[in-house]
Amino acid sequence: MPHLTLEYTDNLPAFDPAAALLAINRAAVDSGIFGESDIKSRALRLDAWRVGIEPAPRAFVHVRIALLGGRPPGVKKTMAEAVLAALTPTVDRPAGLEIQFTVETVDLDRDSYAKATHHG
Amino acid sequence: MPHLTLEYTDNLPAFDPAAALLAINRAAVDSGIFGESDIKSRALRLDAWRVGIEPAPRAFVHVRIALLGGRPPGVKKTMAEAVLAALTPTVDRPAGLEIQFTVETVDLDRDSYAKATHHG
Amino acid sequence: MPHLTLEYTDNLPAFDPAAALLAINRAAVDSGIFGESDIKSRALRLDAWRVGIEPAPRAFVHVRIALLGGRPPGVKKTMAEAVLAALTPTVDRPAGLEIQFTVETVDLDRDSYAKATHHG
Repeated sequence: MPHLTLEYTDNLPAFDPAAALLAINRAAVDSGIFGESDIKSRALRLDAWRVGIEPAPRAFVHVRIALLGGRPPGVKKTMAEAVLAALTPTVDRPAGLEIQFTVETVDLDRDSYAKATHHG
Repeated sequence: MPHLTLEYTDNLPAFDPAAALLAINRAAVDSGIFGESDIKSRALRLDAWRVGIEPAPRAFVHVRIALLGGRPPGVKKTMAEAVLAALTPTVDRPAGLEIQFTVETVDLDRDSYAKATHHG
Repeated sequence: MPHLTLEYTDNLPAFDPAAALLAINRAAVDSGIFGESDIKSRALRLDAWRVGIEPAPRAFVHVRIALLGGRPPGVKKTMAEAVLAALTPTVDRPAGLEIQFTVETVDLDRDSYAKATHHG
């Protein structure tokens, strides 16, 4: 906890997932509500995707923040906005392309969440 | 909003993710409740998957529809059924294969949803 | 129903997704609350990911169990713990690597869930 999932369309040739993940993880650390090593993020490059039905040049980058339930709404809103602010500067903007950036938060069910850590 | 995620097992050799995404996006447009350019869909080809534990020939195609919270239950049900109806004709049916088609809807947390659009 | 999604970081060289999926599907079957052929699982190998912001050697394996809403909390907790117990022995442990194993459960919206099965 938390789990962050970043998805990006494959028409952003300069997009660097490692840089984007570091940026959003820093935003999560800076929120002060998570342990540093608890922040687990991944990026998925989308090679099959579609925005709407028109042939317009479009792209999107989406982040899902999953965190254990019980956080106040204001905390989740602040968190989503901080991740959005950290994310957008890392994304290249090819000419003529409309890019949608979106961030959602979702509560994980706290009672059933199971975890084990192996210290190698 | 909405975000659609289509997953399909890799034993459907004629499956065309581009055609399937266009079909489900059309269904989303036809629902009349979304802006055309707000519909963001992606397809994930699953190369590691398992249905149950028996060695029977099986496949599945699953769609997750994530939309901002507050839609009436009837709207979500109608939406899921429309996407299912649009999806199934796009899927090839190899002989002897049982294929499960499933569609879920999930509410996104409206208060914390963050979005920015870059107009290139 | 249920849908299980296993994600694993790509620094676990001996990880066998097929073996892990079989193990967690067996745990799901053994719970006695699902039809065998209803259990649909997939594994995603993550090639872009980050734990926290420090350069420590880390890995993670995460399972999301999505099941139709209405299951008692105790059932979901037992299910998550059984999947965690089935999963961990299937994961190799390279020397010096901290590995986080996590399992979440999420309720699918029962009213809007749509399904069709093609019997080939």
